[in-house]
Amino acid sequence: MAKKRILSGMRPTGKLHLGHYVGALENWIELQNNYDSYHLVADYHVLTTDLDTSNVYSNTIEMVIDWLAAGLDPEKSPFFRQSQIKEHTELFLIFSMLITQARLERNPTVKDQVRDLNIQNVIYGHLGYPVLQSADILLYRGDAVPVGEDQVPHIEITREIARKFNNQYGNVFPEPEPLLTKFARLPGLDGSAKMSKSLNNTILLSDDPETVKNKLRKAVTDPKKIRKNDPGRPEVCLVYTYHKKFNPEGEAEIAAGCRAGTLGCVDCKMMCTEKINSFLEPIIEKRKVLENDIKKVEEILHEGETAAKKIAVNTMEDVRSKMQLG
Amino acid sequence: MAKKRILSGMRPTGKLHLGHYVGALENWIELQNNYDSYHLVADYHVLTTDLDTSNVYSNTIEMVIDWLAAGLDPEKSPFFRQSQIKEHTELFLIFSMLITQARLERNPTVKDQVRDLNIQNVIYGHLGYPVLQSADILLYRGDAVPVGEDQVPHIEITREIARKFNNQYGNVFPEPEPLLTKFARLPGLDGSAKMSKSLNNTILLSDDPETVKNKLRKAVTDPKKIRKNDPGRPEVCLVYTYHKKFNPEGEAEIAAGCRAGTLGCVDCKMMCTEKINSFLEPIIEKRKVLENDIKKVEEILHEGETAAKKIAVNTMEDVRSKMQLG
Repeated sequence: MAKKRILSGMRPTGKLHLGHYVGALENWIELQNNYDSYHLVADYHVLTTDLDTSNVYSNTIEMVIDWLAAGLDPEKSPFFRQSQIKEHTELFLIFSMLITQARLERNPTVKDQVRDLNIQNVIYGHLGYPVLQSADILLYRGDAVPVGEDQVPHIEITREIARKFNNQYGNVFPEPEPLLTKFARLPGLDGSAKMSKSLNNTILLSDDPETVKNKLRKAVTDPKKIRKNDPGRPEVCLVYTYHKKFNPEGEAEIAAGCRAGTLGCVDCKMMCTEKINSFLEPIIEKRKVLENDIKKVEEILHEGETAAKKIAVNTMEDVRSKMQLG
Repeated sequence: MAKKRILSGMRPTGKLHLGHYVGALENWIELQNNYDSYHLVADYHVLTTDLDTSNVYSNTIEMVIDWLAAGLDPEKSPFFRQSQIKEHTELFLIFSMLITQARLERNPTVKDQVRDLNIQNVIYGHLGYPVLQSADILLYRGDAVPVGEDQVPHIEITREIARKFNNQYGNVFPEPEPLLTKFARLPGLDGSAKMSKSLNNTILLSDDPETVKNKLRKAVTDPKKIRKNDPGRPEVCLVYTYHKKFNPEGEAEIAAGCRAGTLGCVDCKMMCTEKINSFLEPIIEKRKVLENDIKKVEEILHEGETAAKKIAVNTMEDVRSKMQLG
């Protein structure tokens, strides 16, 4: 039986942090062995919230280096830039005719962004973000989409558009299922619920051991544990969350020591630093090789784009023939 | 000095009527001698108000036959289908990031359509109609756009988008000027302000003499002129408007006879029929030749598409390089 296909992407925001890894990349790396995987650099999506495109290319290269360094295999999972495959925009236009403005206005993700970014006037293309995302997914006839909880409403829009097209013109698209990421979010070093570049609370996949140590030293912990021997509450401590993720075998001991007041934050952070650094070591190693061979990285992108283009053209031929567009 | 470029288009609604001729086609035919002209079959625009695409192709062929039969010269004015040139959709996506939803909601033409078509929920792509039109025009860096009065707000949006792009990324686009059609509207046979297929009040460019005679016989005239010898008011009579357009040399005599009550409506219509039929005769003649050589018509379209594509690709190269999209 043919493998099911997954399609997922990220905006090119530059070097990735542990939050990207835990929330998406780790999942992609695991899934690539069981699915026919395609991963998209969503460079057009950047425009929905920032018109400055001068860093898009360099951010793309940095991100792709992290994908490769962390273990995404371009042979199993071709990656490609949205902007290099015109069929995305063609399908976006067609899909824009299959959904109402009111339906898009009900989309909670855009509502949240409008609030978070304090947007006065929504950009027309920003409102259409989930339409472009639907085109991204359905152009490759993705059966499933690995996403976090917050993206589920977008997948629902994708399913509606697929259904609408199939009913109107004939069967071309699957109705893709969301594949929920288990460990969806990693808290930021400042105690925020989420690591985020704009909050400057991240550990990068490319941070060297000294940087990780310094960042963790300043990380927020349980505010009630002031002295080393005070009993702490691991469940409110972000460092403990990092232990759960990067030190699963030591997690129980850490929690017990913290609660008993026998383990102080300095030591706890030191152990965490070590675990994260040994997790990052091979990634940084691989990154160094790639940083010295950008040509290779670009070649991998171009190869992915050739592979993706083939599928995109095939889907659009089907779309155009069903729509009798000539 | 290089000729200025114009870009204009029509939705493929099938055989054209005198209203299309007077409102646009006649103007295009005249302008093609002084401008570098490009004319677009706006087949994607059909989707904004009708998802059924099964007749788009045959409607396109009928319309292009009328363009040719009426005197549009494909050597001077290449014509092409929007759907065959992916760059339209690419530029549409980029432009969708340069305008707010609120700005598009203020567009009076979409407001009118929503009212006229009794639309409950505006389709996302319908709201973006002027964005797609902006892409159609600016993809060819049109300096001017021959339009009717009602399209002027769209051209204003096009100018705003051109300005916004140029300010953000560097100079790529002209700010196109509207070229207003002098004789913008021809009334319908039922007395409506406008000939329109949906009102079934048209004379087609392909109507044979007998059909024109029958259609005109039933045309509404001045309701106060009941008997032949009643004095009439040419200024409220649509047949008089047709005389003005197709019988300019006889117009004054017709008006005088109508006012004096010496010219009855039957005779007036007969004279009008003759004038319209002699106007249509060469068009119908040419149409017959083309109807028997659809291959030739398709060839003309393909040649136009090749010419248009070259310009479109060149513009998008400039756009992508200015945006540093790689």
